[in-house]
Parts: sequence; C-alpha cells; structure tokens
Amino acid sequence: MKITNYKVLLASNSPRRKELLQGIDIDFEIKVLPDIDESYPASLPVEEVAEFIAEKKASSYTNNLKEDELLITADTVVILDGAIFGKPNNKEEANAMLTALSGKAHRVISGVCLATLEKQISFSVTSEVLFSELSSEEIEYYIDRYSPFDKAGSYGIQEWIGYIGVEHLSGSYFNIMGLPIQRLYRELKNF
Amino acid sequence: MKITNYKVLLASNSPRRKELLQGIDIDFEIKVLPDIDESYPASLPVEEVAEFIAEKKASSYTNNLKEDELLITADTVVILDGAIFGKPNNKEEANAMLTALSGKAHRVISGVCLATLEKQISFSVTSEVLFSELSSEEIEYYIDRYSPFDKAGSYGIQEWIGYIGVEHLSGSYFNIMGLPIQRLYRELKNF
Repeated sequence: MKITNYKVLLASNSPRRKELLQGIDIDFEIKVLPDIDESYPASLPVEEVAEFIAEKKASSYTNNLKEDELLITADTVVILDGAIFGKPNNKEEANAMLTALSGKAHRVISGVCLATLEKQISFSVTSEVLFSELSSEEIEYYIDRYSPFDKAGSYGIQEWIGYIGVEHLSGSYFNIMGLPIQRLYRELKNF
Repeated sequence: MKITNYKVLLASNSPRRKELLQGIDIDFEIKVLPDIDESYPASLPVEEVAEFIAEKKASSYTNNLKEDELLITADTVVILDGAIFGKPNNKEEANAMLTALSGKAHRVISGVCLATLEKQISFSVTSEVLFSELSSEEIEYYIDRYSPFDKAGSYGIQEWIGYIGVEHLSGSYFNIMGLPIQRLYRELKNF
C-alpha cells in the first residue's frame, strides 16, 4: 500500500524493526546504523531518552539524504521505578534486570524520528508491561537459551519469556517489540 | 522446558494456536478437530461462550484419551456492544464487521479447556482492543489481500490490519491471537 511519496530508508540493525516495518506492506531499504554514542544528558527526563537517541541516530545520516528520501530511526528503552534499563552486558546483568522486572509493571518507550532534507519530526509511544513472578529457574532458562544481550531490559516480548511471563500489557505490543508501527503508519501518511 | 508429566495434545486446526503453543518450548502433538456444532444456548452470557465452545470441542475427544494424555482445546470470540462476532461468511460480512469495529473498543475472549481421563478444567481470558478509524480503502485492502474468513471478527491482530489499525490493547496480545498462552503455561504447570 502506497502511503508516502518518498523512498523510505530504515536505519536500524534490528531484525525486529525490519520485520515490523514490513508488516505495513510498504517498500523500504535498510541502512546499516554505525556505532552511535547512545549517551544522553543526565538531566533529561527518562521519558524523553528514547526520542533523544532516535534523533541522535538520525543526525548521522541527515546530511547525506537525497531529496526524495525519508529516513526512519528508532530507539527503545525499558523504565522500572524511574530507572532506565539498557542492554545487558553479560549473564549477570541480564539476570539482575529480569529479577528486578519479575512480578512488577514497567514502562517501555519507543522513540521514532522521521527525517527528510527539509523536515524532521519525532515522537514516542509508551506502553506498560506487567510480568508475573518469574522463578530463578525460568530466568536462567531464558537467558541460556535466548541470549537477550541485544535487547533493552534483557527481554523480547515475542520470545519465550514474553509467552510465559507477560501477565498483562497496556498499549501496543509492537511498540514493546521496538517500533510503534500503528502510530508510525499514521505519521507516514500525514508526513 | 518440561512443565507437565502428560503427553500434550492440541486439538485445533489453527496454525496460530500451534505457533503460540510452540512458543512455550513444550513437546506436543496436533489432533485434527472434526466439524463441531459451535452453537450455544441463547441464554448463555456472551462472556461464557468461548469457554463453552472450548468444552464442546473437548467433549468429542475425551472418551478416547489415553491415561497419559492431556488434551487442549480453545475457542476465541470477538464481542462488540454485547454482540458476538464470529467468522465472516463472505466479503460483505467481513466488511460490515470491520466497519463496525472501526474507531471503537471491543473485547476478545479466548476460552481454553484442559482434559485428561480423570480431570477437566477450563478458563477464559478477556482482552480489550481499540481500533483507530479505518478508512473503507483500508478495510477493502485488508480483506482483498488477507482473506480473514477463518478469523472471529474478520481480523488477525498479527496481520496488516493489526499493525496499522490497533491503537491500544489491554490484556494479552497472544490471547487476542487466539490462545492465552501465559495463563495456559501457569495452568499446565499446576495441573
């Protein structure tokens, strides 16, 4: 379905974001995302971090865009009790994150930036996830089998842990996977 | 992961239910579900219909179970303003259902029955889905391209229409797909 007059570029190394964008039946190209400094000012409210990093990812490309190109970048963060959970560096960190998330509700925010040579907009979408109480056996099984080291908060809702452990969600499942695709579709239509 | 001492049988013709059960990493076998009379008493509250039909589906098997077998059956209904939306018989019905769901919130209830020779339990899980306003062009595109004639309410949340049209959901994404897998995992562990 044709929803934009631009040639769409998705700058992301995430297979999940690629899959989600394919779900709205548009043509697009993938751009490899170079190593980006994902730091942010300590004073930035946690709710604004995902959008801030999505804009940072865009800024390394925007000078090289062609007139007919529209760039999409995105970032997703997990927030528990006001603290941001990024990607875990090892098994111990993954275990600590999942133990902290067990039996509690947390927020997932995905920020998205749309940019052309002439215009840039960004937005973010918040969803809430409630995990049931996870046993240490379940947490260890998941980490050993699914190696969630490329995932904010150490989990993918579309993986085993999401099947057995997510008791309730409020918002958008796809946003929790990494891209608020319904909102993105509307924004692309109106761009 | 071993969560039950039984040999698990899923009696369902739905590829989505098979996929969802695979997601919890257990071994199971698929049984073909024969044509079942899916009628229900007019006096039955709409909230109980899915569980009632799941039990009906189980009843055609339970006499033939072996001692070590555990049977799973399920049914999913869509409820808008107190009325049950089943599977559409043709394009016109699909169009009418999606037009009715557009811009509104509806409930999805999946009922599940677990049965062995000695014991039977059943339960159901309710989730809520809010569709954004869908244009007639979007509804026609979806029906022509995805033929949702095997789906209660004429839509699959995991398909294009779910990507572009679901503004908010509350509950379980997998339940809306057809099987409340997190609850089912807990019930299997405790069976």
